[in-house]
Amino acid sequence: MHSFQELSAQFEERFNVRHFPTHPQTLYDPAQYILGIQGKRIRPVCVYMANELFTPVNDDAYHAGASIELFHNFSLIHDDIMDKAPLRRGMETVHQKYGNNTALLAGDVMFVTAYENLGRISARYLPRSIEIFNKTAKEVCEGQQLDMDFEKMHDVKFDDYLKMITLKTSVLVAASLQMGAVLGGAGLGNQDHLYEFGKNLGIAFQVQDDFLDAFGDASKTGKQQGGDILANKKTFLLIHAREYCSNAANTELDDLIKNNTADKVEKVLQIYKDCKADNWSAELKDKYYNIAIKHLEDVAVLDSRKTELKKLAADLMMREK
Amino acid sequence: MHSFQELSAQFEERFNVRHFPTHPQTLYDPAQYILGIQGKRIRPVCVYMANELFTPVNDDAYHAGASIELFHNFSLIHDDIMDKAPLRRGMETVHQKYGNNTALLAGDVMFVTAYENLGRISARYLPRSIEIFNKTAKEVCEGQQLDMDFEKMHDVKFDDYLKMITLKTSVLVAASLQMGAVLGGAGLGNQDHLYEFGKNLGIAFQVQDDFLDAFGDASKTGKQQGGDILANKKTFLLIHAREYCSNAANTELDDLIKNNTADKVEKVLQIYKDCKADNWSAELKDKYYNIAIKHLEDVAVLDSRKTELKKLAADLMMREK
Repeated sequence: MHSFQELSAQFEERFNVRHFPTHPQTLYDPAQYILGIQGKRIRPVCVYMANELFTPVNDDAYHAGASIELFHNFSLIHDDIMDKAPLRRGMETVHQKYGNNTALLAGDVMFVTAYENLGRISARYLPRSIEIFNKTAKEVCEGQQLDMDFEKMHDVKFDDYLKMITLKTSVLVAASLQMGAVLGGAGLGNQDHLYEFGKNLGIAFQVQDDFLDAFGDASKTGKQQGGDILANKKTFLLIHAREYCSNAANTELDDLIKNNTADKVEKVLQIYKDCKADNWSAELKDKYYNIAIKHLEDVAVLDSRKTELKKLAADLMMREK
Repeated sequence: MHSFQELSAQFEERFNVRHFPTHPQTLYDPAQYILGIQGKRIRPVCVYMANELFTPVNDDAYHAGASIELFHNFSLIHDDIMDKAPLRRGMETVHQKYGNNTALLAGDVMFVTAYENLGRISARYLPRSIEIFNKTAKEVCEGQQLDMDFEKMHDVKFDDYLKMITLKTSVLVAASLQMGAVLGGAGLGNQDHLYEFGKNLGIAFQVQDDFLDAFGDASKTGKQQGGDILANKKTFLLIHAREYCSNAANTELDDLIKNNTADKVEKVLQIYKDCKADNWSAELKDKYYNIAIKHLEDVAVLDSRKTELKKLAADLMMREK
């Protein structure tokens, strides 16, 4: 079994090529550009790790990993247009650098390229892979739409927020693990357990993300404390506070959201603490982490093969940034 | 063999359903909306007509036709965003009605739905169908990018314009015919002849389109004469005139494009006539039409089976609107 780092390097070695024709440059250079903004390649490595539970990492796992990574980058390009984001990982976003229209088209052509890679999967696994891929791709679009819908709403219910965050961020990791299992010849039960492992781990990760943004140590996260609060972003913490804090605190939240006073972060954090949103979110994270681990344990392969996936999950939960 | 109208009705009967889940409505209603702006369903009928050369129209032809029609509508949604077009076939465009972000996402999810339909094609034809579909989808994106690039250029060469228009409008019709043949069990030679038939017919159609916009009878086209001239659109006529008219006329064209004087259309038309762009474009149309027909003739099935396709081609060429 290989570590995350080893598999990441293994994937990167093959993936780090030009994925597009040279002409028209005005379309394909922008598409290639975002692939050069190095991410961690978490999703393809998830394909590899799940694949390696059942078989030495095979060619199909590369094709699936590449198609998922390309899909992920397609969604980043289009999300950045929608969010009007100027930067991604410290680099100019595609639309910022090349204009909205070209970014839109570069995203579209990246999406086609994702399907091209998917189409290289062996015939016996192809229909099932396409099925998982399409279902997930639709869900990711649904998640983005719900996120935009929620921005305009005053109150968002916990269950709705959970659903949005699951669609927007967790299902793609879940599908990556599931597809790795499919391509390793795993049975339906094992495929499903890996999917649920990824889905619940993704939720735990997002809960942790919201917590760190509010209560993390800025010297470790490298981000301004309370960035979500300043941006009036809906988070697990805000949604919990809205539901459980007093009417007076709710009114204060309304005022704080309207007026960006200098003590905004401090005051919102106090409201979170008063309704114990910090403790609640730690418990919520543990809850989803434990569900994830239970599903991993239920995968019917030798425990010793699961070491690296368990390590990855634990590392993600222990992180302070 | 069935006529265009019969096959159009046959396709429409099955296609005229909701293609999307109900939730989230904010995403899927906009996607469904554009499918309700009735087009002629030319591309799926091309799948059917080519399919019927070889076999009674089958289920696979429906899935291919639906996937191509969905892809076509995806590209319309995104093109309308890029072109900032407020209307399509007299109805509000998706972004005009629902906003740019939702239109972008509705396009994306339409694209996934196209692949879902494609994935329903029988396993034995699936890899080849995906291959044709992906190649064509990339080409359509390339065509749109070239079109945007050309808008910013003063001079566009005939060959480059021909390539752009081929990618933007002809290859999808060509691929529709080709896929119909594939799904009818046709051999590679017949597949290629039908592709070339569609591609060249598409070019002839576009040449005719440019001609009618400039020289057509407004009472028949239902459009303002010289709409392309008023919009400073690059057309076959303008590109020909740029290349073959005198330096003086070229300078006059520059002035006319800069200043929208009342006699702009009249004067540009005179320049077109002076360099015989009208005659040239009629010959150009005939040239591509004849190439198309030659490829149709070379398809190795009984002539009597080709009647409806020949009729369709002739009707498209004889049109005055």
